[in-house]
Amino acid sequence: MKHYTEPIQADLKAFEAHFKDTLKSPIALLDVILRFLVKRKGKQLRPALVFLAARLTGLPPTEKTYRGAALVELMHTATLIHDDVVDDSPERRGFFSINALWKNKAAVLVGDYLLSRVLLLAVEHADHDLLFHVSTSVKAMSEGELLQLEKARRLDIVESVYYEIIEKKTASLMASCCAVGVSSVGADEAAVQAARLFGRALGMAFQIRDDLLDYRQYDQTGKPHGIDIKEHKMTLPLIFALQKADASERKAMIRTVKRDSDRPDRVQALMDRVVALGGVNYAEATMRRFRDEAVSHLAAFPDNPAKEALVLLADFVVERKK
Amino acid sequence: MKHYTEPIQADLKAFEAHFKDTLKSPIALLDVILRFLVKRKGKQLRPALVFLAARLTGLPPTEKTYRGAALVELMHTATLIHDDVVDDSPERRGFFSINALWKNKAAVLVGDYLLSRVLLLAVEHADHDLLFHVSTSVKAMSEGELLQLEKARRLDIVESVYYEIIEKKTASLMASCCAVGVSSVGADEAAVQAARLFGRALGMAFQIRDDLLDYRQYDQTGKPHGIDIKEHKMTLPLIFALQKADASERKAMIRTVKRDSDRPDRVQALMDRVVALGGVNYAEATMRRFRDEAVSHLAAFPDNPAKEALVLLADFVVERKK
Repeated sequence: MKHYTEPIQADLKAFEAHFKDTLKSPIALLDVILRFLVKRKGKQLRPALVFLAARLTGLPPTEKTYRGAALVELMHTATLIHDDVVDDSPERRGFFSINALWKNKAAVLVGDYLLSRVLLLAVEHADHDLLFHVSTSVKAMSEGELLQLEKARRLDIVESVYYEIIEKKTASLMASCCAVGVSSVGADEAAVQAARLFGRALGMAFQIRDDLLDYRQYDQTGKPHGIDIKEHKMTLPLIFALQKADASERKAMIRTVKRDSDRPDRVQALMDRVVALGGVNYAEATMRRFRDEAVSHLAAFPDNPAKEALVLLADFVVERKK
Repeated sequence: MKHYTEPIQADLKAFEAHFKDTLKSPIALLDVILRFLVKRKGKQLRPALVFLAARLTGLPPTEKTYRGAALVELMHTATLIHDDVVDDSPERRGFFSINALWKNKAAVLVGDYLLSRVLLLAVEHADHDLLFHVSTSVKAMSEGELLQLEKARRLDIVESVYYEIIEKKTASLMASCCAVGVSSVGADEAAVQAARLFGRALGMAFQIRDDLLDYRQYDQTGKPHGIDIKEHKMTLPLIFALQKADASERKAMIRTVKRDSDRPDRVQALMDRVVALGGVNYAEATMRRFRDEAVSHLAAFPDNPAKEALVLLADFVVERKK
């Protein structure tokens, strides 16, 4: 197998057409924005997770699986749009952000509209299991972002709170994607839980990799490094390094985050110290533990191409360069 | 009966405690914001509608009625918070807006959090009818705001589109409040539909009154008048006046909205012309027709104190001075 999407190529192709239909609107402004969103679609990791999880059971995807994939993709899109407002990002995925193009007003409203589409789609089909998984994620994601915001202001964070933040803001959605896929083909509760645990551990590894990418050079990752520090986000490499530093160095490091995060030389020096204190290595090792944990949960399922693909996906998540 | 809340005083009191519990959070920043929201709560028109609609059937409110009232109030609060971002309002209900206090970031996230609480509350109790009513409103409200935004940019709007906008952005939620109340006590579909139509017509009257209030003086309404014109919102008095004006005056009026809406003297002159052309009178008459339509839908229900209170509420909606 060359790529984790191999067993679900046809599923994803059919899904794309299904998703486009879901996003149509008679309101001109909304339709323009939604078309733009379809165009700038990302790597569709979340729908892929739904289809792979469905096939992991040995059963083929159903109509409900398509609705489940649309639900998670719509929800993910809605939260990305709201993130654009939140971060005041001028760009996302190489295009201008919806925010920059149509301002906060339209961005918030389109996000709300998509969330309601998510809702209605599931309500109309009485997909109550999917609704449960999806609404659990929305709650967790907003809590995770708010917790991160709170900690970014006070700059006091311990490792366990970091895990709580990334579990909520990232891992909960991947866990729900897997639960949605397995639940959509009518598998039993034990299978749903095993898939959820796989997705959770995968999401933890995914976010730690994301945070590690911030320690690479601009030209390699496609985004400027050190941006988390500029935004006062305390990620695992820094948290570990702060634990290792002595009291006076710790104070100096926190001061850099607080006061000098707009000075590239200071940020660079801080990041060099984080590496020297073993923060990057520690985060790498932790990420790999989560990858191994994810794969271990796949033991609950029969051997099949979807299982093989999910192992490949777990490796992709920890190896990716962007 | 002196006030429309008379038959539901005890319901609203019990609801307040129930609602406070719903809004608790272990995340400190979120808890601070939520407490602030409870404090600045408005006139609770929407929960009152839910309880009155429930009692309109002759049956007492149930646990489900409380959840329904919490759903609509949470959803209304979430959309108000998102409106704060959208409008960049420095104030709302006399307090500083959440936006001004904690910036867009927290505002969007808290809005999302509340929407997810709405979802989970209903999903956990398998309140699928309530979910349907509430998600229909969220979709309609975001569509209505987006449609208004689109029209505000192009300044081309006819009366029928104005009705579509206010139906979506305002009347749909009031319609859902009434449907939720009646549905929560297990009444039949015909009763749910009659209540929905009452709420819809009430909401239309409510929004026209809101738009008319913009034509009053600052000190009477508590907000500066002419603000809709400043925001390029085309409301019924202006739309009617534009229809009545000849081609050249129409052009001049639109130019004022487009270019001179930051000049109080020009806005004042425009508003005087709107009054002179009969725009305010026409909107007043239209509003009263919606009030009468609302009351006519109450014929589907037995005579009882809740029905009497809803007539009082309809009168309050059209007579209110703020």
